[in-house]
Amino acid sequence: MNIEKIDALKKWMDTANVELAYVSNPQSIAYFTGYQSDPHERVLALFIALDQDPFLLTPALEAEAAIKSSWTYDVVGYLDTENPWKIIANEINQRYGQPKQIALEKNSLSLDRFEFLANFFPKTNFQTDITPTIQKMQLIKTDAEINGLIEAGSWADIAFEIGFSAIGSNVSEQEIVAQIEYELKKKGVSKMSFDTMVLTGARAADPHGTPNSTQIQENQLVLFDLGVVWKGYCSDATRTVAYQTPTDFQKHIYQIVLEAQLAAQEAVKPGITAGELDEIARTIIEDAGYGSYFNHRLGHGIGTSVHEYPSIVAGNDLVLEEGMCFSIEPGIYLPNQVGVRIEDCVYVTKNGSQALTKTSKDLIIIN
Amino acid sequence: MNIEKIDALKKWMDTANVELAYVSNPQSIAYFTGYQSDPHERVLALFIALDQDPFLLTPALEAEAAIKSSWTYDVVGYLDTENPWKIIANEINQRYGQPKQIALEKNSLSLDRFEFLANFFPKTNFQTDITPTIQKMQLIKTDAEINGLIEAGSWADIAFEIGFSAIGSNVSEQEIVAQIEYELKKKGVSKMSFDTMVLTGARAADPHGTPNSTQIQENQLVLFDLGVVWKGYCSDATRTVAYQTPTDFQKHIYQIVLEAQLAAQEAVKPGITAGELDEIARTIIEDAGYGSYFNHRLGHGIGTSVHEYPSIVAGNDLVLEEGMCFSIEPGIYLPNQVGVRIEDCVYVTKNGSQALTKTSKDLIIIN
Repeated sequence: MNIEKIDALKKWMDTANVELAYVSNPQSIAYFTGYQSDPHERVLALFIALDQDPFLLTPALEAEAAIKSSWTYDVVGYLDTENPWKIIANEINQRYGQPKQIALEKNSLSLDRFEFLANFFPKTNFQTDITPTIQKMQLIKTDAEINGLIEAGSWADIAFEIGFSAIGSNVSEQEIVAQIEYELKKKGVSKMSFDTMVLTGARAADPHGTPNSTQIQENQLVLFDLGVVWKGYCSDATRTVAYQTPTDFQKHIYQIVLEAQLAAQEAVKPGITAGELDEIARTIIEDAGYGSYFNHRLGHGIGTSVHEYPSIVAGNDLVLEEGMCFSIEPGIYLPNQVGVRIEDCVYVTKNGSQALTKTSKDLIIIN
Repeated sequence: MNIEKIDALKKWMDTANVELAYVSNPQSIAYFTGYQSDPHERVLALFIALDQDPFLLTPALEAEAAIKSSWTYDVVGYLDTENPWKIIANEINQRYGQPKQIALEKNSLSLDRFEFLANFFPKTNFQTDITPTIQKMQLIKTDAEINGLIEAGSWADIAFEIGFSAIGSNVSEQEIVAQIEYELKKKGVSKMSFDTMVLTGARAADPHGTPNSTQIQENQLVLFDLGVVWKGYCSDATRTVAYQTPTDFQKHIYQIVLEAQLAAQEAVKPGITAGELDEIARTIIEDAGYGSYFNHRLGHGIGTSVHEYPSIVAGNDLVLEEGMCFSIEPGIYLPNQVGVRIEDCVYVTKNGSQALTKTSKDLIIIN
């Protein structure tokens, strides 16, 4: 349980005139309660009241685990045969009366769930969205959070080492993925932060490609994009390496992306905006003539979720502050030819930034 | 692309007086378009018009892959710097005018996304939910779909074999998970359908527990719950085995769960209701005195999603029909003592059912 975060939310609720906040995203619930869960299609809900104790609603089959977690307030379980919305409505009525306003986490609450709840509270105002507040709370990381992200990042470095060692002529993308995840899981990492990506040759030109049985191709680049969840914190990093001798063209594309990545990373410091960072990297790629092949934003925030606020994207005027954490991941994707992406996540320090992953960004050649 | 499914949806749209349907769940989009994607926080949207061609909106970085997929209608890409809702609104206006009604997939569309869209169509009615229609379409599987589920199920059998072989005194839950996923991925399975669960001893009494570094305990039960995604189809199966000699009490609990599982599975045939099936299994466990320790529904539908419609739960009067696929997974969870669950997914045949997994359900003893 994180009582400071709950108090910070309550402070905002006070100024926003919100009596009750409904936290619906399991990752936000973990952030406040310390109770981690993927409830699948079942309802997991946290209600935080301004002037009274909060309560957590879980499926009955999770109630035991929630009670055993660091969460010390009430846990209300419901059976699959029960209507969770009726139980929620009863709990709210008994504990808090008929709230004039219930704020919602609108970026995660589905429309049907909103309608189920609203049905029980016809006079309640549901206009206020707590998403931006939670996003802003998560934006500046504490030292403990940064330490968690550093540990998660060091696992990504270990993953690269395993992956690079697994490269060979008769090995497929999928086999390398299997090897990386096997070694990590044996070492105690229970979860990757997203599906590990290993793509060879022109297949890396799909920024969201899926590894398959394609064997690693000689004299081609191999792209690794991976991360783990470690003690609740995520890592996310990308390296593109060469298997045997890269062509001059591959090296050329690589150097452009590297220059863009390094320039943006070196520019990180309190005071610069997210949009300016994107521009620094994008200008280098545009000036080299490949602007239209860098078809995504420069980066995204990272924390207990692998993708969180802020978006490092053109037009985002958010001014960076010490303690923010995000990825810097420019890429060039030339269909049917080559794909290169280089990514480090960083945290903003007093005067600059520190990377969360340490694996070399010079073009590594695997023989 | 699955034109029959699109036509079936249009037929329903015609009767429901819906001009335009907004499909927002990436798994539903894959169901209609054949294009599989996890867009993370980016917007992926399919618009199906009653009288005109549909279009698919994807992030720019996915547009190339979507065009290369089996989807033959338009793909509209948008950059991270663009507002996807503005692009959607323009596309709808240009293609279809100002629809009187846009039906939504309310169980997956977040409230903020609904508000972004609705903002552009102040005169449009958004009341209709297409979720039940899509769920019903997915309810009766075609032969091709059942074949996909059978293949996915046979991978679960292979996974059990790997997992059972990995059991030993100095091996942890996590190491067994690593071994299972490694072997499967080496064989070409790219994705598990959920986080593989291996829990030993009393740890299996948490129905949603997470494997950790706990070593397999002698003379204790070990619970495996796992599944893969294979060619888009999911499997999901559970076996509980004994490591060395089980106690009489463990065997007693196991036999009750087994009897409940077999009785329900044998009762499956067209004409029985979902609720009746739940009752058959539950009565056996209740009569044995453990009713309150079977704290979840009997099962859930399975298909291209690991959990889909229908819910096999008390009170569900849905009458089973040939071609439906779902899990039958009773369990008894005695906190700090023992956890047993046995699960097969089945498909309903003309006169009964066939299981999708074949691994023996007699108590397997590993020495």
